[in-house]
Amino acid sequence: MIGLVSLVGAGPGDPELLTLRAVDRLRAADLVLYDALVDRAALRHAPRARRAFVGKRAGRPSIAQRTIERLMIDAALRGERVVRLKSGDPFVFGRGGEEALALAEASVPFEVVPGVSAAIAGPALSSIPVTHRGLASAFLVVSGHAESAYQPVLGSLAPGAATVVVLMGLGSRAAVAAWLLRRGWDPATPAAVVLAASTANACAWRGDLRDLGGCELPALHPDAPGLLVIGAAVSVAAQLESLLRRRRPAGRTPQRPAAAAGTGG
Amino acid sequence: MIGLVSLVGAGPGDPELLTLRAVDRLRAADLVLYDALVDRAALRHAPRARRAFVGKRAGRPSIAQRTIERLMIDAALRGERVVRLKSGDPFVFGRGGEEALALAEASVPFEVVPGVSAAIAGPALSSIPVTHRGLASAFLVVSGHAESAYQPVLGSLAPGAATVVVLMGLGSRAAVAAWLLRRGWDPATPAAVVLAASTANACAWRGDLRDLGGCELPALHPDAPGLLVIGAAVSVAAQLESLLRRRRPAGRTPQRPAAAAGTGG
Repeated sequence: MIGLVSLVGAGPGDPELLTLRAVDRLRAADLVLYDALVDRAALRHAPRARRAFVGKRAGRPSIAQRTIERLMIDAALRGERVVRLKSGDPFVFGRGGEEALALAEASVPFEVVPGVSAAIAGPALSSIPVTHRGLASAFLVVSGHAESAYQPVLGSLAPGAATVVVLMGLGSRAAVAAWLLRRGWDPATPAAVVLAASTANACAWRGDLRDLGGCELPALHPDAPGLLVIGAAVSVAAQLESLLRRRRPAGRTPQRPAAAAGTGG
Repeated sequence: MIGLVSLVGAGPGDPELLTLRAVDRLRAADLVLYDALVDRAALRHAPRARRAFVGKRAGRPSIAQRTIERLMIDAALRGERVVRLKSGDPFVFGRGGEEALALAEASVPFEVVPGVSAAIAGPALSSIPVTHRGLASAFLVVSGHAESAYQPVLGSLAPGAATVVVLMGLGSRAAVAAWLLRRGWDPATPAAVVLAASTANACAWRGDLRDLGGCELPALHPDAPGLLVIGAAVSVAAQLESLLRRRRPAGRTPQRPAAAAGTGG
């Protein structure tokens, strides 16, 4: 009897953002292969599974993609239930498509369990809607990993035509900002850096595109994820903050900006 | 004592794609205001809440946005826990940003609970990854609701530079396809229509951009959601299907293409 491989999105980090189906698949799993950005608390849902870390970490040799695929296939052919637990959604920069093809090629049954993507939830948890009436009617998601990947698409987009979200964008923020300015984006376009969204270490910087490249960020773990958001919709966060500040009694510092909105009335 | 409003994403439809936090907020809710595309099964998690349908439906008068905001604010000011349950993610074409501003303006505490967006999960559940190595390193999400919203951004994007996802795109598929072709997109670009993603009525059409405008779709409920996906990454679904077909024994018809992959070995 052949098992099943579930390509599961774990969400942006906070284990409460796992889906019910993700939890169900973890509970039934014999083997969980998980990535670097997956919160270990998510693994508590898989008490009877063997667990293997197969993530990539800054500055360290990482396990080959072919090896990960081999591990999944071999376990499924032994009849095991395998969960491939990926940060965010498995089909957004997660090599999920490649893994699906490898599984189909090996005649291993699989399914995709979509997750909450950091591309949308990261901005949202910093009070930034990627679309907003009158400010943004589209959003573009790219990876900041390689210039050759983001330059053509960002270069073609009309300045300000969409909210731009750059995943894995921390290291390339100066290059991305310079590229957009060179392509005619307004230096006063609102911009943000969202760090470790949905985790206990979450924080954000907000300012203008002209300051994005040189902005100072808090020191974080080198593996902490960071994304950039650029576009008029980023200004919603500032509007919300100024409304909250107006209403908040002195001395109260909310831990979660959105959740603590105006509790003082 | 003031209550709390949770702006909660219900995911694309399937109640198993609710997050743990969404379920937690539903359990504690006194009042749930839900949209047209939210599956009623999700409401089972809120047994003690009053429930109000505040969605928009094709061809019928809909409740005014200000009324929805008033209902949330009044309930929270009475000390109630309110869940504003939105299809997909609350900050993707969901007026979530506007509702957050209205709540902040009224000094009502609120939080955002991100959900699984149909923009990513819809394609994924039809075996289409919005990004795929060598095929797509970016994706653009627009609404097909108004030409004035999608034409500028689609018109500026270099042909083929990103996977294009058009939410609420069913009625505008001919206009979107014609617009992209006019802007120089290759008529052979793979394209898909995904209908009622993640629900029992889910189905999809796949072909080329040249055929997208005139493609015949199954008759569905007029409120059923539909999205378009256009770009080279759509071809991954065809690759997967051909691998599955090769392996599937005669006479077996899987209900879920991805889940049933190659069960015959």
